[in-house]
Amino acid sequence: MSAGRVKTMRSSSHIYAIIFLQIIIVVLFALFVRYDPKTAQRSPKSVEDGNGQMKDTYPIFQDVHVMIFLGFGFLMTFLKKYGLSAVSLNLMCSALAIEVFTLVYGFFHVHCENPQFEFGSSDCPSSWPYIDVNVVTMISADFATAAVLISFGVVLGVTSPLQLIVMTVIETIIFVVNEIIGRDYIGAVDAGDTIFVHLFGAYFGLAVVRVLYNPDHAKSDKEGSSYSSDLFSMVGTIFLWMFWPSFNGGAAATGDAQQRAVINTYYSLCSCVMAAFAFSALVTPSKKFSMEHLQNATLAGGVAVGACADMMLTPGGSLAIGSLAGILSVCGFQYIQVNIFR
Amino acid sequence: MSAGRVKTMRSSSHIYAIIFLQIIIVVLFALFVRYDPKTAQRSPKSVEDGNGQMKDTYPIFQDVHVMIFLGFGFLMTFLKKYGLSAVSLNLMCSALAIEVFTLVYGFFHVHCENPQFEFGSSDCPSSWPYIDVNVVTMISADFATAAVLISFGVVLGVTSPLQLIVMTVIETIIFVVNEIIGRDYIGAVDAGDTIFVHLFGAYFGLAVVRVLYNPDHAKSDKEGSSYSSDLFSMVGTIFLWMFWPSFNGGAAATGDAQQRAVINTYYSLCSCVMAAFAFSALVTPSKKFSMEHLQNATLAGGVAVGACADMMLTPGGSLAIGSLAGILSVCGFQYIQVNIFR
Amino acid sequence: MSAGRVKTMRSSSHIYAIIFLQIIIVVLFALFVRYDPKTAQRSPKSVEDGNGQMKDTYPIFQDVHVMIFLGFGFLMTFLKKYGLSAVSLNLMCSALAIEVFTLVYGFFHVHCENPQFEFGSSDCPSSWPYIDVNVVTMISADFATAAVLISFGVVLGVTSPLQLIVMTVIETIIFVVNEIIGRDYIGAVDAGDTIFVHLFGAYFGLAVVRVLYNPDHAKSDKEGSSYSSDLFSMVGTIFLWMFWPSFNGGAAATGDAQQRAVINTYYSLCSCVMAAFAFSALVTPSKKFSMEHLQNATLAGGVAVGACADMMLTPGGSLAIGSLAGILSVCGFQYIQVNIFR
Repeated sequence: MSAGRVKTMRSSSHIYAIIFLQIIIVVLFALFVRYDPKTAQRSPKSVEDGNGQMKDTYPIFQDVHVMIFLGFGFLMTFLKKYGLSAVSLNLMCSALAIEVFTLVYGFFHVHCENPQFEFGSSDCPSSWPYIDVNVVTMISADFATAAVLISFGVVLGVTSPLQLIVMTVIETIIFVVNEIIGRDYIGAVDAGDTIFVHLFGAYFGLAVVRVLYNPDHAKSDKEGSSYSSDLFSMVGTIFLWMFWPSFNGGAAATGDAQQRAVINTYYSLCSCVMAAFAFSALVTPSKKFSMEHLQNATLAGGVAVGACADMMLTPGGSLAIGSLAGILSVCGFQYIQVNIFR
Repeated sequence: MSAGRVKTMRSSSHIYAIIFLQIIIVVLFALFVRYDPKTAQRSPKSVEDGNGQMKDTYPIFQDVHVMIFLGFGFLMTFLKKYGLSAVSLNLMCSALAIEVFTLVYGFFHVHCENPQFEFGSSDCPSSWPYIDVNVVTMISADFATAAVLISFGVVLGVTSPLQLIVMTVIETIIFVVNEIIGRDYIGAVDAGDTIFVHLFGAYFGLAVVRVLYNPDHAKSDKEGSSYSSDLFSMVGTIFLWMFWPSFNGGAAATGDAQQRAVINTYYSLCSCVMAAFAFSALVTPSKKFSMEHLQNATLAGGVAVGACADMMLTPGGSLAIGSLAGILSVCGFQYIQVNIFR
Repeated sequence: MSAGRVKTMRSSSHIYAIIFLQIIIVVLFALFVRYDPKTAQRSPKSVEDGNGQMKDTYPIFQDVHVMIFLGFGFLMTFLKKYGLSAVSLNLMCSALAIEVFTLVYGFFHVHCENPQFEFGSSDCPSSWPYIDVNVVTMISADFATAAVLISFGVVLGVTSPLQLIVMTVIETIIFVVNEIIGRDYIGAVDAGDTIFVHLFGAYFGLAVVRVLYNPDHAKSDKEGSSYSSDLFSMVGTIFLWMFWPSFNGGAAATGDAQQRAVINTYYSLCSCVMAAFAFSALVTPSKKFSMEHLQNATLAGGVAVGACADMMLTPGGSLAIGSLAGILSVCGFQYIQVNIFR
């Protein structure tokens, strides 16, 4: 009985958590967030700047946006009884992560145009610590969301909405802190965000599963895919695959570096597909291609090339990296079943 | 028997209606429509102009194009027996609306570069009233199509193809007249076309339903959704959700105003998602998220912020508007069942 | 028994074919392919050039990329038992075609910036015949892939993976040779690649079917569509339909010619939809729209206008071409069943 009551209470608590969080977020936005005065507020200069920034960044942003909301969302529909939940909760977590990221990243970068400026010091160009948002904030927020969604993929089907909401808030905060430590203090180079998004998201997700693990639910009845759910999942896979060059090129510098990032990712993904198909058939007893392999391993080439996507890998080097990533991803999926719960 | 014959006759009449309309349209196009001499005809100057116009407008146009044909089309697949019809008829109505809009809008704007020019006056720069089309015409036509599709969503499943064709032609004509009255005479400001597209389309659709209403068909056997149809509908929902910033920013001025429109829509949609999830679970007796709510209410934030999207709402204001829109949309869907047929 | 063994052997042979091919491709890439020094290698000049090339070409490239991997892939899911295979093999053939095209096209265009340069002559700007890749190579590779996928559509369901791999390699090589003969020697004009991609791919596919035809498998049990597979196929159809203006405009010159290509394709596709709907209902005994017609004939307008898309067709001419294409495509599908196997 008491268990039943607890469950009922818990099943409403995510509603109040969302409402409570959303009120706090609206208040903090109202107090601190403003349009970037250089590009998004009316002034003779901003019209010109806003134009250039929109033209440079907005098409890349939209490609990344499609990856986050459609690509990740539908990739996770492969569980036949969990497709609608996967797409919906993907949408909820992403929207929340975007709002939280804007605030957390903003508080670490108030007026970040002046790199000498320290938070709270008297050098602050204005008396109030404003957070400036522009179209670049939007693409950064989408990148942070990707980390949350990778963790979401790890805990898929074993978490309640409330747990997902708590995870999203905590992970977004740690994501920002981790990236600031990595980039600003350690000086890590990670053009396509392989380290700060993909690795961080995967290990964070594994840690969450480790904590939430319940042996009673170890074999979920929601497991297993169907023909139709596999096709929906391929919609997600292919959108991720197609726009990955934008993901790796979006954060890179403009000019030749951005073009290298796009070329390297494009060829790495192609060779990754070839390797994933060959080794999927090789390791499957029936010598058939396995959809599970293809849905995951075809994307490994984009992740593998990410951190150094804008460097002089050479096209041949990209192909080699992509092939290796495809082989490792299929073999890892097939042979390695580490028990992280011991 | 006679009823049977009438029905047979009616079931072919839409074919002849399409053929008849299409012949008229081709003839009118051949007589009046030409490429815009400033950007799409060969001249030393137009190469430069055509280039700039393509780069500014074409990516935004493609985003809106995806919303119209894929977003609206698949949003309406939620009725499990009506998915193929919804996607197909969505395509047919849109194509027809684009053709009709080009002509009707064109006849009201012959040589519209000169705002003092009045139709039929002797100031006409050429003796023949040419309609100039360029890539901006294409994005305007897609916007008009959105109004027709919103009405189509209202009458979904209770109209014949012939009725849809007649509705499309009449609605497109009234749409153009209404927008000219509203913008040019009343001076209405509506950056994201909330008033002229969304409100107009919704009320036009309600009026059509009022006229076509047949108490015998009140409860259609095509109602009800299935798991698979809900997932297809989410494809449409998410494409609409993702590209809504382009919709609201596409018609806005360039520069800082366009960037504000994009930022406001982005944050409004995020907070609308949070509000829609919270209130969907709150008003549903089982405390579960309802797909019907999510497919509709998550988009309310884009509509609500539309009319003033390019103004100085502040990011916090956008969040507040989006939250309110999500709450109102869920509650309206759940509680208000106005009987418009009395 | 021996037949069983042969089949077992053959069913693994495609794995070794992929691995063998991929190793050769990686070696050839490592030896010959480099980033284009003008746009994708670090130099004071390349930053500016790389920037401009990215902005001009990358958004169009992404539209074409979506057509290739999502559009063609999901268009071919209409066979209800073959959807996953169609999407997966579409991905595999495309990735392979991109790699092979880069090499074959590259060997015919080493340092193609100097049109007087002949392969092997002493005018070669560097001693080693480098293949330069940039974002334009990527869009060209995607165009070549389209020809392979059109042939793939012809042989759908009757070929093994190994046969598809062999077909992809041979077709890509012949595609490059055919286009060089056509464009450089005969001087053919084909802005939207109707001749070199669509016609070439269709006839190549027919030739492959003629060779592979097995009377025992004439009526495949994989034939027939289902409600759900028809909807997935419409996802592909609509993505192809929406981005066809980018396909026809992508290869065209910039400026006014590109804008004409986009306008002509847009209006041709709209009128093609109207014609396809009218004649689909007209030729079907039940006077209903046939999904088979709509999935194919709605795209005919884009193909028909392709070769001359950037010319002064006039908008009325585009509408007329699109209408005719839609009518011919529906009638051809319905009435013409040529037996190519006699």
